[in-house]
Amino acid sequence: MVVLGIDPGTAVTGYGVVSRRSVGGVTLRECGVIRTSPSRPLLERIREIYDGTAALIERHRPLVVSVEDVFQGKNAQSALKLGHARGAILLAIAHAELEVAEYAPRQIKKAVVGNGNATKDQVAYMVQRQLRLEEPPAPADAADGVAAALCHCLIGSFPR
Amino acid sequence: MVVLGIDPGTAVTGYGVVSRRSVGGVTLRECGVIRTSPSRPLLERIREIYDGTAALIERHRPLVVSVEDVFQGKNAQSALKLGHARGAILLAIAHAELEVAEYAPRQIKKAVVGNGNATKDQVAYMVQRQLRLEEPPAPADAADGVAAALCHCLIGSFPR
Repeated sequence: MVVLGIDPGTAVTGYGVVSRRSVGGVTLRECGVIRTSPSRPLLERIREIYDGTAALIERHRPLVVSVEDVFQGKNAQSALKLGHARGAILLAIAHAELEVAEYAPRQIKKAVVGNGNATKDQVAYMVQRQLRLEEPPAPADAADGVAAALCHCLIGSFPR
Repeated sequence: MVVLGIDPGTAVTGYGVVSRRSVGGVTLRECGVIRTSPSRPLLERIREIYDGTAALIERHRPLVVSVEDVFQGKNAQSALKLGHARGAILLAIAHAELEVAEYAPRQIKKAVVGNGNATKDQVAYMVQRQLRLEEPPAPADAADGVAAALCHCLIGSFPR
């Protein structure tokens, strides 16, 4: 069972694709980031995020997409921008007729590290350990996408 | 030249479609709202907003889509939700390869009423007058979409 995990952002969207097997645990298939340039019009950036998500879905055919959920900041303008990026990601999932699972950052940290207040480094370290990688996922922002995928493998439900 | 104006919202997105002629001014072709139910999953609501926008573009083939721009509230959670809706609308515009024009609420009021602090009623009244309608656009939320379209006709630039 393949799970795509996504940590949405307007500038950098981290992602990770993992396979969960009944025997042998979870393995990493791919991780990385969708990066958009702040100098480009918002319309183009949203389209790149949509296209990047659609391409990942096309390539890996996940059963579920696990998306980081809640905006932690207090700034309405940043939240509005982040909403644009999340909207594009959710739409790519909807157009592919896939299931979406949404997890708050705290839930992801709790599931992966055992502590809802874990630091970014702790998350990267536990992702590396649980997936038996030689190094933490790179670039660093990819780790949060992998953590979202891993979180769903650990505490989520799967369609039959 | 046809302009589609949109006032994005997660629950209610107002829209108006106007034709601008070199002689005879601006006339209304259609106005209305895309309404989504708060009881449905966000994924479905975003998809309905995208599909509704795509259907309007398909039906009217506008030259430009004029979208209300800035979030006025201070609440980060509302801004995040609104961002999802706007993201879906911008994506439908991008997928149709159309030009987008973005206007702040103040700019729209200033262009249509002559006062950046105009009330909703004043906007609806001036929209009615300028488009020579027998009644203000209905439902009320549609008027803001019509105002966005009208704003572009009054102060926007058009591709040759």
